[in-house]
Amino acid sequence: MLPKTGLFKFHIESYVCDFTERATLPVICDFILKAASIHAQQRGFGYEQILNDNIAWVLSRLSVEMYEYPKHNQDLTVETWIENVNHLFTQRCFRFVDQKDTTVGYARSIWAAIDVTTRRPINLLDWCPDMLSYVEAEKECSIEKMQKIPPVDGVEPCMGYTVRYNDIDINKHMNSIKYIAHVIDVFDLSLFKEKSLHLFEIVYLAEGGFGDKLKLYQQIVSENECLIDTKKGEESVCRSRIVWE
Amino acid sequence: MLPKTGLFKFHIESYVCDFTERATLPVICDFILKAASIHAQQRGFGYEQILNDNIAWVLSRLSVEMYEYPKHNQDLTVETWIENVNHLFTQRCFRFVDQKDTTVGYARSIWAAIDVTTRRPINLLDWCPDMLSYVEAEKECSIEKMQKIPPVDGVEPCMGYTVRYNDIDINKHMNSIKYIAHVIDVFDLSLFKEKSLHLFEIVYLAEGGFGDKLKLYQQIVSENECLIDTKKGEESVCRSRIVWE
Repeated sequence: MLPKTGLFKFHIESYVCDFTERATLPVICDFILKAASIHAQQRGFGYEQILNDNIAWVLSRLSVEMYEYPKHNQDLTVETWIENVNHLFTQRCFRFVDQKDTTVGYARSIWAAIDVTTRRPINLLDWCPDMLSYVEAEKECSIEKMQKIPPVDGVEPCMGYTVRYNDIDINKHMNSIKYIAHVIDVFDLSLFKEKSLHLFEIVYLAEGGFGDKLKLYQQIVSENECLIDTKKGEESVCRSRIVWE
Repeated sequence: MLPKTGLFKFHIESYVCDFTERATLPVICDFILKAASIHAQQRGFGYEQILNDNIAWVLSRLSVEMYEYPKHNQDLTVETWIENVNHLFTQRCFRFVDQKDTTVGYARSIWAAIDVTTRRPINLLDWCPDMLSYVEAEKECSIEKMQKIPPVDGVEPCMGYTVRYNDIDINKHMNSIKYIAHVIDVFDLSLFKEKSLHLFEIVYLAEGGFGDKLKLYQQIVSENECLIDTKKGEESVCRSRIVWE
């Protein structure tokens, strides 16, 4: 049996960096999905393997806490393991380690598996009892537990976009990371210069499709914290909480 | 002396693919810039090295012709060499080779070097005569020579966008590849399903900065060919020609 924890190394290319010469949050999230995907595949329940059973993984929540973003030309190692599995959801954790072996961040994600035809969740424990043998419950993932993210109502939208070609991914849906990229596009460049995007939480509630016109609503919670609700009409597509430092 | 031609291999990750499970044009262009960047760096005139002389490379034109886009999980080798250098411009060519060693496309790019302070072009032959020794004039780059791309006038914009955080790159300017991503976002998803983006040409004329509101104007040339002009007010920021197959 493979070890419970998987380690995946990524190199920070110039074209994944922002103007501060560090990898952007959406790029860290690409690495998260890539690490999760290979880890699952190596253990028999990867995206392509389970599609044969007409099942697909769906990302339900993600929270990422970064103490420091990796810089241009550095390596970032992403460690991932399964923290928990129940009937409906599995929790997968991530630890980010820089090339000096310092922990620079953590992430936690919650996934459901759905029947591709009915789009309804399937019972994870019935379908893949093997996953239980990979659960690493004791390993520490020191990121705060995700809180409920309330809707943002009663304000004017601060930004809007139409879902276009570059938003649609290999699975023919709006890419989960593109929602995140659009959310952080709300902020002024000066914020990224003065502060660091310390904590990002997102909960996915509905799906955006090609041509959908989505609107973003922002609520300032405190000087360094805000909520952003991405809506299609009245319906929340995803809600996020951002904490700067 | 290093060989004139450089070879760089890229792996097609799932998150760089579109819904047809092939790498997108902007990703091919990221590979182009990356290959150009390492090739120049290895030979002493890379971005970071010349910044010490207060000089920067500026992409002036790019044309990419793809017979076939690389698929998910495949490797793509990018071959690059300098075709020509004169006082003002250098031409750099690219050949794309799939893992079966088949040529799947070509690209040609034209670069100027500018003084970072004055933003004016410098004389390439005076500044870096060494580049001449790397010119590989005989090697075939079988992509048609770039034509002049006329402006698109007298039509309503077909799309618009504001330059935001994710558009700004490590050099603190609007990323040249993001212009391309926005241009192809004009097209309906069905076009990418039915056809292949065979030829893409772009000429860069001015610079977009953070917060700029850019508008795209489209002119249909024939069933499979169109021009898209990206403007800031009345001024063309970049113009492109797209041929589908």
